[in-house]
Amino acid sequence: MKNLTFLFLLIWCFTSCEPVQTKDMISGQFAHSVLIWLNNPDSEADKNKIETGLNELIENSEYIRSAHLGVPALTARDVVDNSYSYHLMVTFGSKEEQDKYQVEPAHKKFLSDCGSLWSKILIYDSMNVLQEGENLK
Amino acid sequence: MKNLTFLFLLIWCFTSCEPVQTKDMISGQFAHSVLIWLNNPDSEADKNKIETGLNELIENSEYIRSAHLGVPALTARDVVDNSYSYHLMVTFGSKEEQDKYQVEPAHKKFLSDCGSLWSKILIYDSMNVLQEGENLK
Repeated sequence: MKNLTFLFLLIWCFTSCEPVQTKDMISGQFAHSVLIWLNNPDSEADKNKIETGLNELIENSEYIRSAHLGVPALTARDVVDNSYSYHLMVTFGSKEEQDKYQVEPAHKKFLSDCGSLWSKILIYDSMNVLQEGENLK
Repeated sequence: MKNLTFLFLLIWCFTSCEPVQTKDMISGQFAHSVLIWLNNPDSEADKNKIETGLNELIENSEYIRSAHLGVPALTARDVVDNSYSYHLMVTFGSKEEQDKYQVEPAHKKFLSDCGSLWSKILIYDSMNVLQEGENLK
């Protein structure tokens, strides 16, 4: 019976002793942030095609750790640029993994399928410098 | 002994039966992506001050869901802009939560402490349109 009590306590500890997670550090040390301006930003066909392509890319990539795909939120401030069509942010475990992503089949297929849809691409690549605090993990 | 075996199996199941997570959708539907150009990008004092301020902001904000704070990864491609000093990407559950973040004490303190350190800010705000696939959760 003592053994059973000990094991129940062990299970309780495994399932309830983790600290409360108030917010996340976005996983992946390397962030690849891509702004895309479409040739025909009002074309529903073009938007459907690139959204399908981007979803497939994210799902099929071997290297992407986490992803956000967004459209302008239209916040009205002087410092906000709402002129782009899509913001893809994907993260990788390292610079080396991002290098591999650039040449992997899923990325090549996306470029082949959708590369003619945009007039401009602007990329910000960055390495994480965030410290892990008590509310971050 | 049978009870003990059952409990060991239960523990094993709790700790090993979760599906393999291949990648994450970045949590938070609203992404607030901020590029910062410092007045004195080579000043260690200014870099320490803004990194401390940004870490405090992320840790103390009531509304930030997830965060990435990066410095240029120096990838050498024509479409990559490496001229900025910091890329802060924070996410929120909604546009309304980002509106509250703009006026919350932690954000006001950051602007008061660090607002004189930069020469230029550029922001991309975007709403998530990513579909959840079998490899995303």
